Amino acid sequence: MEQHMSEIVTAAFIVIGDEILSGRTKDKNIGHIADILTSVGVDLKEVRIVSDDEDAIIDAVNALRARYTYVFTSGGIGPTHDDITADSISKAFDLPCEHDVAAIELLRDYYKGRDIEFNEARQRMARMPKGATHIANPISIAPGFRIGNVHVMAGVPSIFRAMLDNVLPTLETGAKLISTTTPCPFGEGIISTPLGQIQKDNPEAIIGSYPKLAESGNFMTDIVVRARSEEVLERTTGAVRALVARLLTEQDTGQ
Amino acid sequence: MEQHMSEIVTAAFIVIGDEILSGRTKDKNIGHIADILTSVGVDLKEVRIVSDDEDAIIDAVNALRARYTYVFTSGGIGPTHDDITADSISKAFDLPCEHDVAAIELLRDYYKGRDIEFNEARQRMARMPKGATHIANPISIAPGFRIGNVHVMAGVPSIFRAMLDNVLPTLETGAKLISTTTPCPFGEGIISTPLGQIQKDNPEAIIGSYPKLAESGNFMTDIVVRARSEEVLERTTGAVRALVARLLTEQDTGQ
Repeated sequence: MEQHMSEIVTAAFIVIGDEILSGRTKDKNIGHIADILTSVGVDLKEVRIVSDDEDAIIDAVNALRARYTYVFTSGGIGPTHDDITADSISKAFDLPCEHDVAAIELLRDYYKGRDIEFNEARQRMARMPKGATHIANPISIAPGFRIGNVHVMAGVPSIFRAMLDNVLPTLETGAKLISTTTPCPFGEGIISTPLGQIQKDNPEAIIGSYPKLAESGNFMTDIVVRARSEEVLERTTGAVRALVARLLTEQDTGQ
Repeated sequence: MEQHMSEIVTAAFIVIGDEILSGRTKDKNIGHIADILTSVGVDLKEVRIVSDDEDAIIDAVNALRARYTYVFTSGGIGPTHDDITADSISKAFDLPCEHDVAAIELLRDYYKGRDIEFNEARQRMARMPKGATHIANPISIAPGFRIGNVHVMAGVPSIFRAMLDNVLPTLETGAKLISTTTPCPFGEGIISTPLGQIQKDNPEAIIGSYPKLAESGNFMTDIVVRARSEEVLERTTGAVRALVARLLTEQDTGQ
């Protein structure tokens, strides 16, 4: 993993699947990839969930691969008629979608060892855009693939996670965004104005405030400061903590 | 809720917030709105998660409101500096973002009753595009709003759900997509080809197969059939069940 301390590396994630949009399946990959990319200094800038529809997939892939350093996808790479990701990505890149020779061999060996017929449907899982490289799948063998800056992975969470682990060492990563969280017993209505001033005074930091409804019915907030340097993080967090301390001595707890 | 049995009503959902993209907060609204919209016959076609960035919000809102019957958003309508949804939606519609008189009154009464100062930050929560109508917030009073076909709601899940409940009766809904699920002890490698044939024979139905990794390490699948008429659903589900029954008598359980 090559690290560029000064460069900002960005990413988008595309979840492909009608089952997420219908509510039948609850996505478990968005939160995971967000955590992982943040931890290695890649900024996840956008997520899209699209249906099993060729035009929808092509539009999303082409819009996002032009805009961000990396694109990741999940879903639609199995053997059934509704698994159209490989074809759609190939069309997005204007490349033929072919049975990859190395993937065919991997799968042939795998099924042979389990005495299972390597039928036409299973061979479908070896299809990918011409020139793509594999993303290894230690769980069910059928590989994901990378073409250009787009990484195509399975939707089943255990396989998605294993594939993402295999992709990470190949990524260029940026200066890691580090953060602090300061819990604040006051709602946004109290902290908003002085917090806005701290943001203005510390433009290199990114300050977010996240309201939580306490059991008492009052709002509290978590104030999160993010920065790419320890120095900016410490200075800004110090200002936030001083604000909370001041409010604790001055304010009622009304929201 | 006016129902148009023949018409297909579509929707997109935009989640606004850096905290979801950084992994700090795990989204809890996508699965909920997917369930709710499916249950009332509105097809959720696309979800986007975008950062607290004006251009990103405007681009997403304008792309999606032109494409789908309804757009819903969550997040960014609180009183702090990073709450820029009202301004961004106003710009997307090329409308001024103003303090809404009725919202100011609601909030003034609410804070007066609680003996809390109705300061400038809290007044920010009354801002919305000129001409917008309220979406009532029974929990913390500050309303969401509807402008054109776009419904702007809070990100805090309890408030999001309450606002969505208040929006539902105002929506036109389409012919509801009804479904059956047939659990199948075989993996996609076995069912793919005959299932593809059932899909071809029943073009009005939407057949999906969702692999699950069993504890034994084998793949099983849930075969989901969706249709807008009982008759299509029954015919197609019958064909799926006959397939599973046939495989159960013929096949080994290899994946």
